Amino acid sequence: MPAQTNLMPVLTAAQVNVLMETVYPQLNEQFKYFEAIDVFRGGCTVRLNAADRHLRPGGTVSGPSLFTLADIGGYVCVLSHAGPDALSVTTNLNINFMRKAEAGPIDGHCRILKLGKSLMVFDIDIVAGPEGHTIAHATGTYSIPPKRNGDVVK
Amino acid sequence: MPAQTNLMPVLTAAQVNVLMETVYPQLNEQFKYFEAIDVFRGGCTVRLNAADRHLRPGGTVSGPSLFTLADIGGYVCVLSHAGPDALSVTTNLNINFMRKAEAGPIDGHCRILKLGKSLMVFDIDIVAGPEGHTIAHATGTYSIPPKRNGDVVK
Amino acid sequence: MPAQTNLMPVLTAAQVNVLMETVYPQLNEQFKYFEAIDVFRGGCTVRLNAADRHLRPGGTVSGPSLFTLADIGGYVCVLSHAGPDALSVTTNLNINFMRKAEAGPIDGHCRILKLGKSLMVFDIDIVAGPEGHTIAHATGTYSIPPKRNGDVVK
Amino acid sequence: MPAQTNLMPVLTAAQVNVLMETVYPQLNEQFKYFEAIDVFRGGCTVRLNAADRHLRPGGTVSGPSLFTLADIGGYVCVLSHAGPDALSVTTNLNINFMRKAEAGPIDGHCRILKLGKSLMVFDIDIVAGPEGHTIAHATGTYSIPPKRNGDVVK
Repeated sequence: MPAQTNLMPVLTAAQVNVLMETVYPQLNEQFKYFEAIDVFRGGCTVRLNAADRHLRPGGTVSGPSLFTLADIGGYVCVLSHAGPDALSVTTNLNINFMRKAEAGPIDGHCRILKLGKSLMVFDIDIVAGPEGHTIAHATGTYSIPPKRNGDVVK
Repeated sequence: MPAQTNLMPVLTAAQVNVLMETVYPQLNEQFKYFEAIDVFRGGCTVRLNAADRHLRPGGTVSGPSLFTLADIGGYVCVLSHAGPDALSVTTNLNINFMRKAEAGPIDGHCRILKLGKSLMVFDIDIVAGPEGHTIAHATGTYSIPPKRNGDVVK
Repeated sequence: MPAQTNLMPVLTAAQVNVLMETVYPQLNEQFKYFEAIDVFRGGCTVRLNAADRHLRPGGTVSGPSLFTLADIGGYVCVLSHAGPDALSVTTNLNINFMRKAEAGPIDGHCRILKLGKSLMVFDIDIVAGPEGHTIAHATGTYSIPPKRNGDVVK
Repeated sequence: MPAQTNLMPVLTAAQVNVLMETVYPQLNEQFKYFEAIDVFRGGCTVRLNAADRHLRPGGTVSGPSLFTLADIGGYVCVLSHAGPDALSVTTNLNINFMRKAEAGPIDGHCRILKLGKSLMVFDIDIVAGPEGHTIAHATGTYSIPPKRNGDVVK
């Protein structure tokens, strides 16, 4: 797919991390398990620093942990490209789990497929391991609330 | 859909809870946030006792928490109906979020749509609140590993 | 899930069939392959009269034919419950294929999971054969255009 | 995502088109509406030559037509990379519709996300129009039957 380079972010990865830390303290506690690594035109990169708490039977990273990474990938896309309204919510997310991953850094490469006024559609390739295998792939939709005053909404 | 009453569980809800506590300590810590409430022919009921840690911006139960409930619903279905092999894994899960929910008990009503030798397909209606509104719905597939000795596999 | 009996249809199955014949002639040609069988509070039943043209390699009803039935099920839900605006469109549809089906009548039982102002979420159990096995299950979302004058919009 | 260039096709686009014409005559009738355009390592390109019969109310290409293109994209991936077993079947397909498309050529760019012994996961970007906008995106899974004699199976 041609990259949607006409889309322009309004926040950096660092700004999104600060925003999420403020409005969504439940996401991470003392340690930054989930974080935005990069924000670019039409997408972003997010990371899960998978620890023991993210594992499931078999010693591999759990489905809910990878779902959370996918969901945060969409959240970073919408916050960075539609503006810092924390109340954007996921309406649909479909995820395929394809390979197992061990504890360690797991990266999610997100593309915005459509950015409308009230909906954003995105997908994410989740890769891990020394060879960068794709371990999961997800597609999702965020609902963007109507604009108010352009202020940060928590 | 006609209930699949030909399917017969081999474990009770209490047995599944003990099994999950043993093989999947990361799911709950000191408190039983996620638990099986009932297992019946062709399905089960699971519950999330949603606390502050499960909330997202806006004070509503987060998408990852509801995804976890859906995923656990499928896990309880597969453990109770295909036998206690902890290594069954989700291959696909699609979830729609429809209404907001506050902290408190959230129930997931699961149906097995197909139980094959290597795959199980299920869906789950997630309901909450005094009026029992549907707040989310998910459909998913679990991959069941080839049978070994009939022993519990962790 | 508790039936959404608070939802009230504004069109009957016969009225929806006439509407679809008028605005969507490509759906059926000389014969009524896809049709609404029933409309009730919070849902509907649709039917595919599967003929040779709907089969795929192996002699079973094809995925696209079952997808079309699921999509029409949602269309009948939205036309009958949100009013006869032909321009409502699918934004997402997820379908699981579980068993094979031969040519003959195939019924789709649809539930409206949420009917909002701009979006409707539904699911459908697709059953076939003498024993009424579930052969496929789908979940989807329709986008409902803003109301104009209450006229039929083609 | 890194391209899966380790995957090697065993059939060309022309060979797949001949195979589909033989085993799946219902797909196209007198005219080649759906066709493989290219097969390459780890993926393929398929095309829908959308005519009036593929339109829905509003004069845009219908959801079922785009679903069929996505489904055929996966079928071409599995036939070309896992071998010419016509009995591979879709088990799950999730599609998001993002923009409208008019009659004319519509291209689907497919990637194989995982090629296992019994399952193949793929996704497809569907693009159309002079500016090549993404109009839909889908992710799906094909079930690959156990190998028999390596012969073509119809």
